[in-house]
Amino acid sequence: MKKGKVYAVGAGPGDPELLTLKAVRILGGCGAIAVPKGRQDGESMALGIIGRAVDLAGKAIIELHFPMVKVLSPKALEPAAQRILDTVKDGTDLAFVTLGDPSIYSTFFRLRQALLFFDPSLEVEVVPGITAVTAAAARIGNGLALSGEKIAIVPASYTSGLKDILEKFECVALMKVHSVFPKVKKILEETGTIDNAVYVCRAGLDGEIIKQVQDVEDKDLDYFSTIIITGKGR
Amino acid sequence: MKKGKVYAVGAGPGDPELLTLKAVRILGGCGAIAVPKGRQDGESMALGIIGRAVDLAGKAIIELHFPMVKVLSPKALEPAAQRILDTVKDGTDLAFVTLGDPSIYSTFFRLRQALLFFDPSLEVEVVPGITAVTAAAARIGNGLALSGEKIAIVPASYTSGLKDILEKFECVALMKVHSVFPKVKKILEETGTIDNAVYVCRAGLDGEIIKQVQDVEDKDLDYFSTIIITGKGR
Repeated sequence: MKKGKVYAVGAGPGDPELLTLKAVRILGGCGAIAVPKGRQDGESMALGIIGRAVDLAGKAIIELHFPMVKVLSPKALEPAAQRILDTVKDGTDLAFVTLGDPSIYSTFFRLRQALLFFDPSLEVEVVPGITAVTAAAARIGNGLALSGEKIAIVPASYTSGLKDILEKFECVALMKVHSVFPKVKKILEETGTIDNAVYVCRAGLDGEIIKQVQDVEDKDLDYFSTIIITGKGR
Repeated sequence: MKKGKVYAVGAGPGDPELLTLKAVRILGGCGAIAVPKGRQDGESMALGIIGRAVDLAGKAIIELHFPMVKVLSPKALEPAAQRILDTVKDGTDLAFVTLGDPSIYSTFFRLRQALLFFDPSLEVEVVPGITAVTAAAARIGNGLALSGEKIAIVPASYTSGLKDILEKFECVALMKVHSVFPKVKKILEETGTIDNAVYVCRAGLDGEIIKQVQDVEDKDLDYFSTIIITGKGR
């Protein structure tokens, strides 16, 4: 029997209407849906998103445990990979769902390495999704980058080189700012970029917060938040 | 009579299945569709994409001329803005369609400035789209950025600071490489990043080309092409 295919499907930033037509078709056709289990960054939120656009009844929902280690080697991911390979061996197609886009900051590509390590003949396809960055930019509404501008997408924890980046890039998106917010705010003040810095949390969803960084209070800080710095010198 | 609303809708990278559910709904509900006319970068290609996912019969198709000047001031964009404002004044909703995502490298945000300059009460909404970068990354299939990595999206014409960026960022996407390809290739060789550099043209479409940069020939070069540098040191 021909074995099934594995898809990585981007669920977008939260609004189920931001799923692509292709994501909906692929998810509808897969007999099994895999999501990381109980991760702090809420990948299982992805299941909530797709469940509002796709009928999940009758599909196997597979929660995968990822070890909390710095380097996810194929060995560390063997249990998760084997569960997926077991699922597809009878011809069932499986979709691994990620928030946003699978190519940006998802665990999928470590898992893919492990899958192909244990079964080099496995077919894998990536279905792109709307990223948190462009969703946030859409809500701010004055564009991320105009023609000719450079964009940096940087984990906010990378504070050591942030000044240099703010100097050289017209547009900077800082991801997951909640835990380093005061430090980042200080750097934005020091570099004179704070007037161009907008905090976006839960873009396009209930409880959305869009504020100038100066106006952000402690209660606004949330795991799913981004700071967009744009429009300097326009 | 209540005037209509203006939407900027991302048509994605080319595959009509990569339109979002929201884009399809908004485009379906708009009485008028606006596209830039005959631009070299083929924004009118956007009309071809949406026409394969949405029934355009009965909709007004408005081709807007953008002057080829460096700075698109509200004054320079007045004719285009006035055509849009004339269209929505009877309550017709209008969608301005862009390739990829409206927030990245589209002319929409200059136009938006002009629209709001001439009519500050106009309602404008941006509907994000799949970007060329994540579409290319999906086709390459080994991920753009893993957790903690930094991403730079840079017009390939920015060759002066490229070495510095290649040194500091784990992932770099170079946009519109066709006209500066030999120069960029040389920099990739000099920085030792060429083995991690993949050329992607027409991602996911007929005539798709995915090659290591070393293997690219003159005949492969095309306006809609990207170089992705990723996976260094993984």
